[in-house]
Amino acid sequence: MSMTSGPPTPQDGEVGVAVIGAGYWGPNLVRNFLNCDRTWLWAVCDLDEQRARTVVGKRSSIEVTSRFEDLLADDRIEAVAIATPAATHLPLALAAIEAGKHILVEKPLALSAADARTIAEAAERAGLVAMCDHTFCYTPAVNRIRDEIAAGHLGRIQYVDSVRINLGLVQRDTDVFWDLLPHDLSILDSVLPAGTGPVAVSALGVDPIGAGKPCVGYVSLLLPDDAIAHVHVSWLSPVKIRNVVIGGSLRHLVWNDTDPTQRISTYERGVDIAEIEDEDEQRQLMFQYRTGDMHAPALTDAEALQSLVRDFATCIREGGTPRTDSWQGVRVLEVLEAVDRSRAADGVLVPVR
Amino acid sequence: MSMTSGPPTPQDGEVGVAVIGAGYWGPNLVRNFLNCDRTWLWAVCDLDEQRARTVVGKRSSIEVTSRFEDLLADDRIEAVAIATPAATHLPLALAAIEAGKHILVEKPLALSAADARTIAEAAERAGLVAMCDHTFCYTPAVNRIRDEIAAGHLGRIQYVDSVRINLGLVQRDTDVFWDLLPHDLSILDSVLPAGTGPVAVSALGVDPIGAGKPCVGYVSLLLPDDAIAHVHVSWLSPVKIRNVVIGGSLRHLVWNDTDPTQRISTYERGVDIAEIEDEDEQRQLMFQYRTGDMHAPALTDAEALQSLVRDFATCIREGGTPRTDSWQGVRVLEVLEAVDRSRAADGVLVPVR
Amino acid sequence: MSMTSGPPTPQDGEVGVAVIGAGYWGPNLVRNFLNCDRTWLWAVCDLDEQRARTVVGKRSSIEVTSRFEDLLADDRIEAVAIATPAATHLPLALAAIEAGKHILVEKPLALSAADARTIAEAAERAGLVAMCDHTFCYTPAVNRIRDEIAAGHLGRIQYVDSVRINLGLVQRDTDVFWDLLPHDLSILDSVLPAGTGPVAVSALGVDPIGAGKPCVGYVSLLLPDDAIAHVHVSWLSPVKIRNVVIGGSLRHLVWNDTDPTQRISTYERGVDIAEIEDEDEQRQLMFQYRTGDMHAPALTDAEALQSLVRDFATCIREGGTPRTDSWQGVRVLEVLEAVDRSRAADGVLVPVR
Amino acid sequence: MSMTSGPPTPQDGEVGVAVIGAGYWGPNLVRNFLNCDRTWLWAVCDLDEQRARTVVGKRSSIEVTSRFEDLLADDRIEAVAIATPAATHLPLALAAIEAGKHILVEKPLALSAADARTIAEAAERAGLVAMCDHTFCYTPAVNRIRDEIAAGHLGRIQYVDSVRINLGLVQRDTDVFWDLLPHDLSILDSVLPAGTGPVAVSALGVDPIGAGKPCVGYVSLLLPDDAIAHVHVSWLSPVKIRNVVIGGSLRHLVWNDTDPTQRISTYERGVDIAEIEDEDEQRQLMFQYRTGDMHAPALTDAEALQSLVRDFATCIREGGTPRTDSWQGVRVLEVLEAVDRSRAADGVLVPVR
Repeated sequence: MSMTSGPPTPQDGEVGVAVIGAGYWGPNLVRNFLNCDRTWLWAVCDLDEQRARTVVGKRSSIEVTSRFEDLLADDRIEAVAIATPAATHLPLALAAIEAGKHILVEKPLALSAADARTIAEAAERAGLVAMCDHTFCYTPAVNRIRDEIAAGHLGRIQYVDSVRINLGLVQRDTDVFWDLLPHDLSILDSVLPAGTGPVAVSALGVDPIGAGKPCVGYVSLLLPDDAIAHVHVSWLSPVKIRNVVIGGSLRHLVWNDTDPTQRISTYERGVDIAEIEDEDEQRQLMFQYRTGDMHAPALTDAEALQSLVRDFATCIREGGTPRTDSWQGVRVLEVLEAVDRSRAADGVLVPVR
Repeated sequence: MSMTSGPPTPQDGEVGVAVIGAGYWGPNLVRNFLNCDRTWLWAVCDLDEQRARTVVGKRSSIEVTSRFEDLLADDRIEAVAIATPAATHLPLALAAIEAGKHILVEKPLALSAADARTIAEAAERAGLVAMCDHTFCYTPAVNRIRDEIAAGHLGRIQYVDSVRINLGLVQRDTDVFWDLLPHDLSILDSVLPAGTGPVAVSALGVDPIGAGKPCVGYVSLLLPDDAIAHVHVSWLSPVKIRNVVIGGSLRHLVWNDTDPTQRISTYERGVDIAEIEDEDEQRQLMFQYRTGDMHAPALTDAEALQSLVRDFATCIREGGTPRTDSWQGVRVLEVLEAVDRSRAADGVLVPVR
Repeated sequence: MSMTSGPPTPQDGEVGVAVIGAGYWGPNLVRNFLNCDRTWLWAVCDLDEQRARTVVGKRSSIEVTSRFEDLLADDRIEAVAIATPAATHLPLALAAIEAGKHILVEKPLALSAADARTIAEAAERAGLVAMCDHTFCYTPAVNRIRDEIAAGHLGRIQYVDSVRINLGLVQRDTDVFWDLLPHDLSILDSVLPAGTGPVAVSALGVDPIGAGKPCVGYVSLLLPDDAIAHVHVSWLSPVKIRNVVIGGSLRHLVWNDTDPTQRISTYERGVDIAEIEDEDEQRQLMFQYRTGDMHAPALTDAEALQSLVRDFATCIREGGTPRTDSWQGVRVLEVLEAVDRSRAADGVLVPVR
Repeated sequence: MSMTSGPPTPQDGEVGVAVIGAGYWGPNLVRNFLNCDRTWLWAVCDLDEQRARTVVGKRSSIEVTSRFEDLLADDRIEAVAIATPAATHLPLALAAIEAGKHILVEKPLALSAADARTIAEAAERAGLVAMCDHTFCYTPAVNRIRDEIAAGHLGRIQYVDSVRINLGLVQRDTDVFWDLLPHDLSILDSVLPAGTGPVAVSALGVDPIGAGKPCVGYVSLLLPDDAIAHVHVSWLSPVKIRNVVIGGSLRHLVWNDTDPTQRISTYERGVDIAEIEDEDEQRQLMFQYRTGDMHAPALTDAEALQSLVRDFATCIREGGTPRTDSWQGVRVLEVLEAVDRSRAADGVLVPVR
């Protein structure tokens, strides 16, 4: 029969990539590299070659291997996405950089801020793109939030309250902070003006089910200028909530990520201020807030990971810094380490870094 | 390098399939045939070969062709999925059956009940599986509804009210009834006891935007025993609603398909009945309904099209009738034709068939 | 002890009123007349004097009586609110008008449009305010809808879809149409431009529980210029829905009355129109709608019945026509009668009046 | 005219009561004493007599006064409800007790736990009923929660997470903790088994708008047996949330008080536990939670304050301890004081009492 199969070779300009790690996240990377017109996925690598084969699926001509070194030696592969357990990120990332590969690393970038900095600096010295896969930062919702803040629509940011809870796996090699908090920390890092990130942290973790590690956590992050961010994370909530409220001096913004019809809402802020005299004849300001009109912009349904993968490829080809570069990965880890220190001291406020 | 690519040949027992039509629905079929461990997708066919190539995507070894005949002549291909415009379903299906291929046809099965019956009969004579792609019938929600009704939990079905509205494309070659109503009709056909389908229809279509065809429709379907089903379909609703209420003599069931956390709810039915004497000394029954407790079963997130594709492959290998066989396609078209007749007569009740 | 009780006499300008009927609605009237600074409630009348006493409650100095004639003879009483069974509205209203009292009558104004017209004309001749208690027309939501339409924000009204369903009492002396439809008909009458009300009606009622009267109803109302309104009413729905969608050529408006935080939403309407050439070389317009931005105005929580009572008192003192005057009651009944005629003829379209 | 007004005297057994304070809460007390068949409201007292008159409303024969002493001297008045500013609770309550009146005091019972204990002890010595108006404890939702916990349906309580936020008045004489937290503390006190209340507290308050006092607060309450309760209170949230999640070893319970159709939901808890061997050959338990079926009981719409008022009257007549007695008021204040101490120490964990 005269049927023809797909083209065997990358198009002009496509970045040759490989995925390391065929676990939970690997299939998403594979799908998005395949759907991206700027990348050409050569291979998937996993210690368990059969798992890699399952991830590429039937009818695929993507190569599979259990040998990481083969990828590094392959000149067609310009970049690798590392989606392996966090403990392996440092050695894999450094080896890839040494082999001249650009890297995209699953969060957390490493097991410590120091290790993350080692990766970031190595990539910088080698002139390679090093990116941390903070996927949420590429959602249309976060794009919108950043734009609203940058345009000054919310005014001065006064507080952020995030709830990120659901019923999930009590993971073996991480706790609820290290599992869920990087999402909020990277989002904050992406939307807040540079230099206004957390300066001190108070954290309390709880293990009500006897899992041997915190499964529910509450984190207060002091921001400059008396602003605050608070994050509630949980693996034990029967209902899934992904809700972020950003209170600004002009408007409030609510991001309810589980409501696809109305993810972002901004509320006008009706404030009545009155100067009154109190019983001791002191003059006081009284604030009375009213809920104002609400506006919910129509957002596109673009897949965040696709935008991230494009940003990665574009920065490799055209230069530039990806939105979630490895330095963001470092900053996220600096806060995570402060969380650990605060927890160890019964929730006392500790400075970041 | 020593990397190996995927296995080039189907596993034992996998059904060799091809997809005809690389339009809106084709990519979903391709993806699900690839993910199914009982099918092996050989080829995708479209008059526009480039479109077929786009659908199979990069790095795929699936063959693409613009020649339908090649598929029919290929012995490796045992079954074809037809996802082309409805006007082509009859000739393509008959040709496929003549070539000994099992068929899975996108809804509506054909342009008329008579044509659909021709297809169903031809397949039956040839001993081939002929299935209509009424995907919704394979959702966990519809599974649950059918089970609840079959187990008698709802009691006698008294009424069904369905709202299927959203903002969508005003399609060129179909109206809102033929586009959306098949979903409700096939679902009803799947969940109601055999032989209790619509016997008469009253339909009203509206074209408030001057599109030249109904964009909003209201359909009343009389069921046996004074029961009724009503369906509201629209291409013009700013909010997307997929809501079905089934009123039974014992319980109500609500299916809200846009609420992933609680798709199915059943409500106990508190009824107080009192025999009273009215002003003319007639004895009357008074009914006072109360809302009772609600129960929302946890449903799996299984993809319906995957279950459908498995059912197709299983019936081909092991025999049996798929849930949405071509005779269901015929029944759906019989009601659609009654809708057209009622609309032509200003909404008068017309019998089905 | 020196404690003093409330003032025994009305203030300047307060309208002296009485309430007839201490059933379901009476207590709401009593409460709102008491809270209104333009009315002074003298008495409550019910055939069952004890019921009247219960409605005024403990510690009240409101007089109670079982004799309607006493109210009519009492010069302090300038206006009466009639909240008795519908069959008594005509004689009570006419007697009140004859006694020179302004009237506020619970919906429906009478048992027929002819009777309603008799009331409206009698009041007009006597120069008295005659009002029908279509409370919904005074809600902040309906105010907003009327303003949006009047300001042209929605553009030309293309369709209205209303769902008014809940689990309720199957009433003895009325059916679901006469019980619930007056709400929608009066709202439409209030928000649509004058003269653009229903011109023809198709209605289907169902009695799935053997109650001897329709408990579920579907009504299509043809409006001028190919517009349509559809109303679904039910006493048998396990979930309470009060949802009205108004589709305009410029914007959609959604009124979800069970969501107190966001009752009114207006949606920008993204439309892409393309002129294409079809297979037969005919030129056709293609419409592709997109959901646009959404805006939800902050509404006050004002109680509708309070606004209605104020309007009544204001029209009595200062002249003017209340928003829901008796002629609106007539128009509502004209449509209800068309509903009955259509139902009697199996849902055929019948003209209004 | 022969009309008669309401009965001027209390019925047998009705408790004669008076309300002190005609501010925000007073009207609710007046309405509920009037609607209760076990109480007879004689008088309302406020320093501003006109305000008291406004609260009793038109046509009322309730007496009004500005002199608290008159109430105390009035033998018909057996009980007083005190709804004045918190700073006046102690002297008013003690004076009422000394005059032999039963008392119902608005929350907080006093400005300190010590003062509250003084009140509770004085009432106890005098053999009078002393109740704190923790209204929420009488809602059908809290009744249900207490019953579910007492019946063991939830298993061991592992954590409680409460969010009580809205846009509200920034009050002059209190902060967000003292304003909102008593609700959660009294609810916890009502539903948790006796003796399992908070033992230590960590609190963080924020003043992002420069109001001079905390407007947003986060409180962690350590409970016995490694359980925890966390409460988020805010006056600055654009959306109103009243959500409490109670995680038990058997089931989760969610109380969403802003959803009148489904206030209480209980979730079965699917847990898969596997014993695995980790990389270091240690045996570990793995927990994988799944969301199970959900059950939402039908709750009545009974007004909580009505039940509270009945409980007050019943305890006065028949003896017994009201659910929210003054000792509960003491316990709530003990925790509030711990909150203040923790806040003063930057959120460090402090013991209760």
